[in-house]
Order: sequence, then structure tokens, then C-alpha cells
Amino acid sequence: YVFDYETPKTLVIPNIRVGCVFRFTQLLVVLYVVYVCVVQKAYQDTDSVISTVTTKVKGFAFTNTSDIGPHLWDVAEYVIPPQGDHSFFVLTNMVVTPEQTQSRCPELPNPSTTCVDDCDCIEGHSDPRGNIQTGLCENYSTTVKTCEVLSWCPHEVDTKLPRALMSAAENFTVLIKNSITYPKFRNILPHINSSYLKMCEFNRTSDPDCPIFRLKHIVAEAGEDFQDMAGGILGILIDWSCDLDWWAKKCFPKYSFRRLDNKHPVNNVAPGYNFFAKYYKKPDGEETRMLIKAFGIRFNVIVFGTCVWYLQGGKFAIVPTIVNLGAALSFLSLLPAVADWFMLTCMKKRDLYSKQK
Amino acid sequence: YVFDYETPKTLVIPNIRVGCVFRFTQLLVVLYVVYVCVVQKAYQDTDSVISTVTTKVKGFAFTNTSDIGPHLWDVAEYVIPPQGDHSFFVLTNMVVTPEQTQSRCPELPNPSTTCVDDCDCIEGHSDPRGNIQTGLCENYSTTVKTCEVLSWCPHEVDTKLPRALMSAAENFTVLIKNSITYPKFRNILPHINSSYLKMCEFNRTSDPDCPIFRLKHIVAEAGEDFQDMAGGILGILIDWSCDLDWWAKKCFPKYSFRRLDNKHPVNNVAPGYNFFAKYYKKPDGEETRMLIKAFGIRFNVIVFGTCVWYLQGGKFAIVPTIVNLGAALSFLSLLPAVADWFMLTCMKKRDLYSKQK
Amino acid sequence: YVFDYETPKTLVIPNIRVGCVFRFTQLLVVLYVVYVCVVQKAYQDTDSVISTVTTKVKGFAFTNTSDIGPHLWDVAEYVIPPQGDHSFFVLTNMVVTPEQTQSRCPELPNPSTTCVDDCDCIEGHSDPRGNIQTGLCENYSTTVKTCEVLSWCPHEVDTKLPRALMSAAENFTVLIKNSITYPKFRNILPHINSSYLKMCEFNRTSDPDCPIFRLKHIVAEAGEDFQDMAGGILGILIDWSCDLDWWAKKCFPKYSFRRLDNKHPVNNVAPGYNFFAKYYKKPDGEETRMLIKAFGIRFNVIVFGTCVWYLQGGKFAIVPTIVNLGAALSFLSLLPAVADWFMLTCMKKRDLYSKQK
Repeated sequence: YVFDYETPKTLVIPNIRVGCVFRFTQLLVVLYVVYVCVVQKAYQDTDSVISTVTTKVKGFAFTNTSDIGPHLWDVAEYVIPPQGDHSFFVLTNMVVTPEQTQSRCPELPNPSTTCVDDCDCIEGHSDPRGNIQTGLCENYSTTVKTCEVLSWCPHEVDTKLPRALMSAAENFTVLIKNSITYPKFRNILPHINSSYLKMCEFNRTSDPDCPIFRLKHIVAEAGEDFQDMAGGILGILIDWSCDLDWWAKKCFPKYSFRRLDNKHPVNNVAPGYNFFAKYYKKPDGEETRMLIKAFGIRFNVIVFGTCVWYLQGGKFAIVPTIVNLGAALSFLSLLPAVADWFMLTCMKKRDLYSKQK
Repeated sequence: YVFDYETPKTLVIPNIRVGCVFRFTQLLVVLYVVYVCVVQKAYQDTDSVISTVTTKVKGFAFTNTSDIGPHLWDVAEYVIPPQGDHSFFVLTNMVVTPEQTQSRCPELPNPSTTCVDDCDCIEGHSDPRGNIQTGLCENYSTTVKTCEVLSWCPHEVDTKLPRALMSAAENFTVLIKNSITYPKFRNILPHINSSYLKMCEFNRTSDPDCPIFRLKHIVAEAGEDFQDMAGGILGILIDWSCDLDWWAKKCFPKYSFRRLDNKHPVNNVAPGYNFFAKYYKKPDGEETRMLIKAFGIRFNVIVFGTCVWYLQGGKFAIVPTIVNLGAALSFLSLLPAVADWFMLTCMKKRDLYSKQK
Repeated sequence: YVFDYETPKTLVIPNIRVGCVFRFTQLLVVLYVVYVCVVQKAYQDTDSVISTVTTKVKGFAFTNTSDIGPHLWDVAEYVIPPQGDHSFFVLTNMVVTPEQTQSRCPELPNPSTTCVDDCDCIEGHSDPRGNIQTGLCENYSTTVKTCEVLSWCPHEVDTKLPRALMSAAENFTVLIKNSITYPKFRNILPHINSSYLKMCEFNRTSDPDCPIFRLKHIVAEAGEDFQDMAGGILGILIDWSCDLDWWAKKCFPKYSFRRLDNKHPVNNVAPGYNFFAKYYKKPDGEETRMLIKAFGIRFNVIVFGTCVWYLQGGKFAIVPTIVNLGAALSFLSLLPAVADWFMLTCMKKRDLYSKQK
């Protein structure tokens, strides 16, 4: 009794118009299933990549300024931090204040700091973004008097900013090593050997697999000019689109470059600079520092991508396949309803059909 | 013959109870479809955001301690690292050991380092977490003798920890610039201009779009007190919930603040501090350093969110729509089974129906 | 009229073979539904984890080299950067160039820098990866003459690299604090107390929950030998697989360790080293630095995982449940087609059935 099979009685209607409507809608569903399977690869499981990035910048820049004299900058100085992480900052310009000590000096002149005599300055007064006033009014220059403050003195004067001091920085190169996990792949592809790596340079047409990038090239591909871009953030995007089907088995990084910060001055504040300091001690034990307001470009290596597979390590991606197929098939069950509705409303012999049913 | 249409013969049962059950279950499915489409927006495709964060802290703090005398702290000193990355550490307190050199000195007294004479100290002995003993037993103070070690001397004494030394740090402000890719949006919204940015401060009611945050405010919203929180990790969560349907087209960041570490002392170790050192050379060439055991709050900017769209760059999110609709529709095919079962078991005329079928 | 119920007339076929085929395919669908629900937990919603990592390394290393004499290395020196972020670099070896100043000195000899007399050296000549020549040809040693350059002098000589100088580094330990958000969990589990944390050490069998790892142990589990691994990147993977169903409610981290960089020298460049420098000023004000070419292991803490739940904060994960069930159910609607086809093609009485339908 359990194994009795119950099947609906059917009525065969040899009408070509109804048949066409039925077959056509059936075809639509089949086409969608093919689309989902072949184009969208719905039978695959996906996973996002877990990535590690190491960067190593190379290059030297020579500057000759009045502040610090002739100076050769090497990697240990101009790449900050030195660790070689996914984000690094390359100095391109700077305002150096060479000999600051904790002492007293008049403030930089601006409407709130200028004074006429000591009464304008309040001892101990400070605002959260300012320095501590000593209560004296001192000559800042021969024409202006400002309140004296306790601070790192002398103050930084950033009015005379030399344009793109370290212009040689555009010829620096950066080696980017990126390895992803799940699955395990590297941007240094297996067919690349050490001797090629020592001399190559990334070029989209001639050397698309070389992981060494000239900074000028990166900035140019992002649509910017290195010498004009005093500060900013440049993204080096590595897009891993891996298809690990056993017949495809391809997993390559694609590089692209994009400016990430806002270059329009309308709603921009504090464009790419940072303060760094080198601390020294004078022979008498007093602490002194060289303050560097560093302008430069921060490079961010951003790795993303998804890996898809059909059969990976014996794991057949059955669930997404079933879900996608099943959802498509359920539309098949709508077909008789559509065809019936068409038959019973649009056909001449609708009464006959209706009665037969 | 291929275009013959086969349709099941049906039996119309003019019984209102069966009809109600049938229509009611049909209604449930339709309601679910509406729910999935309107509330869950299942017709949309989603993508997670790729983000870049820049931070810039502003503010000054004045301290006057016996270790280093009056000192004004500026950004170049108290923000570590200076790079302005998504994670930064703001010094709030410190134990300074000003003049350490590589030399010999007696260990800090504790049960394993105290000694009576040289026999208790073994030359060259060291444990992985300790220093190298020279084999001598020296006076640490007038009452205690400890083994002499080769180390950075003198040792740090962290018993007299001043509470929240840099209390002014609570009034520091931080400017957070966050831009996301895919799609491209910034937390500095288009209607914000530079002059507003120079004076605004984030406030959930009056200035919800200002990207400049007072540290005290951040800590307070996380439910903590800045002055009590000697060290810890505070998360600045930026939640991008973008709906890029062409009729909605909204993409705003939402800020929230949360303490990320464990503040309960029961299972807590090594609360928020780090060792930093500034290295100097004495006139005679000997290396000396100022060791700073820095207590402070690490701020982590965490960006997350998903972007959904219906039609983005011509890409219609058809697959999730079909999957969700199809899955719902498949329940429609269960309806006749349900209604049949109801009809054949619950109704009086069940035998008649059964025979007719 | 709306509440008329239309049901197909059915034909009961008491044939055990057709019945078996029908029930068997029905069983397959039911088994798949069970599989999806129980094994794949398709009724759950998933979310990826948002994580914060703090690391703290402990340990001392004693070295005695000709360059810098006896030296005790502590955390403030050998962990770079000192911030305690998710990525840290532990020095294991180094080439120290103690007293560099901005001055003139002959280049290191190689085919492009050796010279016979001043004519071989061009004043002002430099290549992007080189230094600026002064135009003079000087004695590098008694046998070789090279072009003089303006640079940080003397140059680093990295030929005599001591093998695993800081071999004690293998006994350093690192405390990793990891907290995840959505939901809120920590790798320091609630049952762990401070006194246990002060003395425990991670061991897969005896102390699987202790978040303090000996570096040697990490490297060994990754299949490497600490003393042989001069430089490289080691991943500390923390896999959070949380099942937040109310009956399961488990959320534990699983630790694993893996070497992330390529150790095979065939397509490897610039293995794990970085340049660091400590800047000093001589009594006469001249800037000098100690350049450290640091070899070491970079440890990257990588946190990933998904959290699944059924009913979390009142949010019932209804959509994925419906989608998965619906997709499976739609296969049920295929069953009559399969069974009919079987009946009409494989059975003896097929003509009878065909006519009856």
C-alpha cells in the first residue's frame, strides 16, 4: 500500500499554440539553469582570500637644502615604518626644524597669540591644541610681539615649503611579496626565477608578472603626477580571482592602482603629512630633537578576491549547486499554471477544454 | 507531437473549508515572498567594503614629573607609531627610566634574586625571561642584597605609578579619514567643506558627520572613564551600510565606540602598556637610552559593512533574486499535497472525494 | 467561487516497482534535506568575525660580537615596531654598521664601481639604486680602487653574516590577546585566571587554551627549524568557528602555525630582512647613525572564521532556512515526472497506463 504510486490523470491537448507557450517557458528555465551554471558558476563554493604582504622599497635620493645641507637619503631613513608591512610611507618632501629643545620661545604670530605687553598673556593658560603660556610677551620679530610659551622650541615654520624636494623618489622601486592562504598561492609565480626578479620591473604589457613596481609608474597608472602629488594615499590593489575547478586551475593576481584619498581641496583637510622626530642628547645631557614634518605618499597594498572551486580537496560544492538548480526548477512547477491560464483564456475552444478538465 | 500539451485533469471541489486552507497557505507563501523582497531585499547582490583609514591626532599635554622635569608633549612624541595608520596608541601615563646603559647592576629584589653572598649567584646563569648573572652578590639597598646582572642598568622600578599623568590627553582630538572602494565613498561627505572641518567636533546629535573626535568623547561613549582607564583598547567602529539601489542611493558611515579588551582583572594580564626607548650616545661614545614603559589607550579603527545593489553598472543582481523567489515558489507545489491531505482526512465527504480522485 | 479548490484527478497504480522508484527518489530528497540541515547547518546565518589583536613578546638575549661588544637585548630593542600590533618582527640576526655619517667614501667593489683613475668616475652621476659619485677614484683596499661616493659612510659590509646570532630568541614567548566582535568573544576564555596566565605556555595537548606561545614551538609546528630560519614570515592563524545555536553555544579559537613566505631559493628574493637605524649626534653636532640590517622572523597573527547562529538576539535566520529547504523541495516536484517516465517506458503494461492517463 505504501508502494502504490499515485499519478495525476492527464489530458493531452494537441494544440500547437498552447504547446509552443509551454515549451517556450520551459526553454526559458533551461536557459537560466545553463546561465547560472556556466556563466555564474553557481555550482562552485567561494571563499575569500587570507593574505600576507611584505614590501621592500629600494632607491636613493640626494637633497641639498639650507636646513640640513647635502644629504643622501636611503631606505632606512625615508621609508616609515621600516618594517615592510602592507602600508608604507615614502617621504617626498619635508619641513625640518633641526634643533628643538624643551624651552621657552614666543609663539608663531596669529590673531590669538599676538600681544602688546605681558597683560595679554596669562601664565599657565593653554588650549587643547596649543602650548602653555608663561605670561610674558616677547618679540617674535622686530615688528611682532607674541606670547611666550613653554614648548619644543623653536617652533616649526612651514611657510617656505620646497616643492617635491625628493623628486628622485619617483624612481624608487618597491618589491611586493604577497602570499595568500586557502588556497596557498603567491604573487611570485612558479615560473619566475631569482635572476629575473633581480632585474625586472612591472609593466602591464611586457612584464605583467614582475612584482617590482616603480613608484612613478604606480602613480601614473592611478592618473596622477608624482611631482604634483605632495601627499596622498595610493592604493595598490591586488585582485586574486582564482578558479580552482580542476579543468581551469588558474589563480593569478591582477594589479591595479588607484588614488584613495580626496585630492580636491574643497573638502580636504590635513593632506598627507606626518610628524616624525629624531631624538638626541647634547653633551650637557639636554634632550634635543630634529622635528620632521614629512610630506609623502602612503602606499597601501590592498588584497582581495574570492576563490571558487568545484571539487577542492575532495570537497564537492554540492549545496550551492542544489540551491541554484532547485530554485530554477521550482519555476518549472509554475509552467502548467501558466499554460493552463493561457489555454483557458486565450483559446477559442476554451469551453471544451474547461469542461474536459 | 512535441508540441502536444499535457495537462492534468482536475476536480473542482466547491467546499469553502478546503478552499480556505488552500488559499491561506497560498497567502503565507506570497507573504514570505513579499517579506524576502521588501524587508530582506533578497533581490540585491552584496559586496563587503575595502577600506583605507588615515588618522591624525592633535593636542598638547604638559607634565611636570621628577623623572624628566617640566615637559610639553606634542603629537610627534605621544602618538606611536607616527604614521597615522588605522591603529594608534595614545600615551596617557608612563614610567620613565632615564639613563640606562649596558652595564652591571644588582637585580630587583624578589625571592629568586636575593642572595646572601656570591655563592648564591651563578656566573652566566640566565633564564629566558631574566638577565645574565655575573656571579656577584651586591647591595641593592642597605637592607637587601641581590645578584648582580649584566643588563640595561639601572632597572626599571614600576612601583610608583602616577595615576593618569597626561590627563590632558582626554582633550586631544583625532581626525579620521576613511575611504572605501567598491563603491568609492568617503566618510568626509560631499556637503562638508574645509572650513567646517577645521572647527567641528563629532557629536551624535549636532555634528553626526564631523570626522573629528575628542578622545574623551570616544571613551565616554564606550562606557568608560578616560581618567580611570590607564590602558586598554578602544574600537572606533565605522559601519558602512550602503544601499545602492537607484531609488535609494544612500551610503553613510555610522560611528560607534566600544572597549575591545577585557577590563575585569580576573583573567587579565599585561594591560595596555608597551615599552619604547629613545637611544642616545654620550660624548664618550657609550650608548644610553631612555626607557619608557608607556601606558595608554590603543585606538583601533575597524571598518566593516556591506554594500548592496540592485542594478549597479548595468549588472542586474538576477541570481539572488531567482534563488530567493524560486525557493519560495517551491513551497507552492506543496500546497495541493497539504490541501489534499486536509480534504481526505478532515472532511465528512472524504470517501466521495477519495473515490472521485 | 474564489474558494473552490481544484485538485488533479489521480490514478493509483498498485505496482511495486514503480512505487519503489517513486519512494526511493523521494527518500533521496529527504536525505538531502537532512544533510543540509544537520551537516551543513543551512538553517543558520553566518557572519565573518571582526577582530582585534594585541601581542606582547617577552624574553632576553645576550650577544657578544666584535661590532657592538657584549649586549643584552630586551623587548624594547628586538621587537619592531614596539606597538604590539598583529604583526611583529623578532630580530634573530643582524649586520651592524656602527658609525655611519653623511660623508664621502669609496664604494663597495663590484664590476660597475671599480676604477683605475678619476676619469672612470663621473661627478654627480648616480643611478636610482646607487649613490652619488664625487668624481674621484679612491683606494677601497690595498688592491682595489673604487669610485668615491657621497653617502652614509662607511658602507655596510654584509659578507660575514653570523649564523643565528640571537639563538636565545627561540625561547622568547609571546602573549597574544585576541578579541572578536559580533559576537563578543576573547581567546582568553572565561575559565582562565590571571595566575594560570602568568605561568602557562601553549601546548596542543596539555595547555590548548593558554594564549602564551614559545617562538620555538610556533616555528616547530610550522615545520621549520628556528636556528635555520634566518628570516621569513610565520603566520599564527586563529580560526574562530563559532556555533551560536542556543543548544551548542560554543565559540573557541583554534590555533595553527604556518610559514607564509617561500623558503625555496629558486624564486626568492630579499629574504626576511629590514633596515633599521638609530640616530645619534656627536658632541660637535654631526649626525651619526648605527645602521642595523636586521634579519628576523616576522610573525603575523591572522584571525578568521565565521560565526553561525540560528536564533541570535531574537533574530531567527529564516531566509537561509527557506532558501535551502525550498530548493530541496523543488526536486520533489520532479518526482512524478521521473516516475511517469519510468512507468511509461520500462513497464510491460505501459500501453494500459498510457491510455488510462
